[in-house]
Amino acid sequence: MIVNGKNYTAVWMENSKIKMVDQKILPFEFKIVRTTTWQQTAQKIKDMTVRGAGSIGATAAFAMVQAVQKSNEKNHKKNSLIAAAAIKSTRPTAHDLFFAVDSVFEQIQQSNSFTDAKKNARQKANEIFDSYLYSGKKIAEHGSQLIDKNAKILTHCNAGWLALVDWGSATAPIYLAKRQQKNPFVFVDETRPRGQGRLTAWEMLHEKIPHAMIADNAAGHFMKSKEIDFVITGADRIALNGDIANKIGTYEKAVLAKENGIPFFVAAPLTTFDINTESGEQIKIEERNSDEVLFVQGVVGKKIVKAKIVFGDTPAKNPAFDVTPAKYISGIITPKGIIKPNENSIKGILK
Amino acid sequence: MIVNGKNYTAVWMENSKIKMVDQKILPFEFKIVRTTTWQQTAQKIKDMTVRGAGSIGATAAFAMVQAVQKSNEKNHKKNSLIAAAAIKSTRPTAHDLFFAVDSVFEQIQQSNSFTDAKKNARQKANEIFDSYLYSGKKIAEHGSQLIDKNAKILTHCNAGWLALVDWGSATAPIYLAKRQQKNPFVFVDETRPRGQGRLTAWEMLHEKIPHAMIADNAAGHFMKSKEIDFVITGADRIALNGDIANKIGTYEKAVLAKENGIPFFVAAPLTTFDINTESGEQIKIEERNSDEVLFVQGVVGKKIVKAKIVFGDTPAKNPAFDVTPAKYISGIITPKGIIKPNENSIKGILK
Repeated sequence: MIVNGKNYTAVWMENSKIKMVDQKILPFEFKIVRTTTWQQTAQKIKDMTVRGAGSIGATAAFAMVQAVQKSNEKNHKKNSLIAAAAIKSTRPTAHDLFFAVDSVFEQIQQSNSFTDAKKNARQKANEIFDSYLYSGKKIAEHGSQLIDKNAKILTHCNAGWLALVDWGSATAPIYLAKRQQKNPFVFVDETRPRGQGRLTAWEMLHEKIPHAMIADNAAGHFMKSKEIDFVITGADRIALNGDIANKIGTYEKAVLAKENGIPFFVAAPLTTFDINTESGEQIKIEERNSDEVLFVQGVVGKKIVKAKIVFGDTPAKNPAFDVTPAKYISGIITPKGIIKPNENSIKGILK
Repeated sequence: MIVNGKNYTAVWMENSKIKMVDQKILPFEFKIVRTTTWQQTAQKIKDMTVRGAGSIGATAAFAMVQAVQKSNEKNHKKNSLIAAAAIKSTRPTAHDLFFAVDSVFEQIQQSNSFTDAKKNARQKANEIFDSYLYSGKKIAEHGSQLIDKNAKILTHCNAGWLALVDWGSATAPIYLAKRQQKNPFVFVDETRPRGQGRLTAWEMLHEKIPHAMIADNAAGHFMKSKEIDFVITGADRIALNGDIANKIGTYEKAVLAKENGIPFFVAAPLTTFDINTESGEQIKIEERNSDEVLFVQGVVGKKIVKAKIVFGDTPAKNPAFDVTPAKYISGIITPKGIIKPNENSIKGILK
């Protein structure tokens, strides 16, 4: 996607260097950071310089390539074992991270020579990177068919290209609709507490897609006053029965969309489906640090600050995700097509 | 209500001095400011040192007392005319402000001597102050009957004692329930964009009522997971058919409460009812400055700052209020009892 008129992906590899958009300082500063060793790369995953399932997966795959590249004939298998364990420990709950690391690791272990190991690792990492790109593009193709000319679309959180290497999930159909001259307008939920809507707004600004940031509280008002035609969000996990877990507030917007007769769609790559989770009721909601509610990141002058927004010892509760039952979801946009949120459709698409 | 163990009202008068809680720097600093002339007091209303319908009304009434006190036998009627016009112009849409100023002004004009004018003005201003206190207390008595032991209550915005001299509207039943040993717990919506939930949290902290600030996005999740038993909010205006206008986000919480079978109550003094507005559809929603969405007030170290939370020219939309149709409202708690949100009940209570 485009930043300052130039095409970028959230992460990419050039020879032994991994380059990535520094998402810790976005949306305030746009900076590309580079790493030359797997240890540096692991650190960037850990400190959230890179975020989002797909972008983490691709970065981890590239880190494994660095691990073998910096080894020699004798120690490359042992080194890749050490690297795999260390990289996987950076984010203990990221499924795409495990999958990516294990896939490249397997290539290294199965190779007959050091030269082959380097070549095969790089090839597998490229495949993983490409698969995220492909997912985003296919989601764009299927999803953009749902977007009418001049549609006003609400989105929540950032399921954008920053999170999925390129295109994104929720944003992909919007980017394609724009290229199809459909002139979409995007209502961007701020998405407190962490404010990921600011990343979505930043993406939209650079892609020159008309948009407006709104307080999360205003989404219902704009639905009721018929200024929103369509809602599209990403998902963190999709259960077998079509219930989804996603960023806190998704459930609210889904209920409000249903109440106002507005289609509510979820966009996700196939890796988001978890057929081992039967329904949303089995998904445990992560309670994160209350500082996310009590502090806000912003800029004063040119300095990035973390401002405390409450008095003294004000306590907070901070559930990071919520579950949206399938009955509120009009459909799920996947790389293999748009499906209804139910067990049969989900099993069908994963076959 | 209590701050640092001591009883306060949001504003009060001592001889010719008006003292008020500086709400511009709350919740970060608690400071009482004093004024000695009506011009100073008008400035404090204008710059939002004092906010909330009732607190503004009482302050304006006291300002009129200052106007006559600083006059003499000859010019007190003329001076009070000038003061009335100037004070009313500080906040062009505040109904309570007009009512309070006109009531005291009338007393001054109808008095037969300067001495009487001073005495009658002060008496009328005290009456107005007392009427807000009385409204809050009666709302507390009626509303607390709805609150069960250990109830978990959600509130939105700040309809607290800061806004209504003492007790508040939405908070009044909670304060009384606490004194009745009912042990309420309060979920405090942050209430972006302006974050008035921070004032509510500050009130709760000082009153030692257990509470937690939550992102507005989390209210639906806590309703669905049955952690909220009861919702109570204030109102900015109540139409004849029972529709209400209130802080942006109220509509969202009302829809979610209904969807989850949770009672949703509105608390308001009689001055909030507007029988000249037939339904919510006639209420024009004020679009406020988008900076309220794009900037957040907080503290860094000991300094109060306004931090920009988005990139560059990110645009925003900022509707300040929304309309909640009567069908989502379980009842309205008034100083004269709890009524259903419909024309008959509203006409009955205003008789």
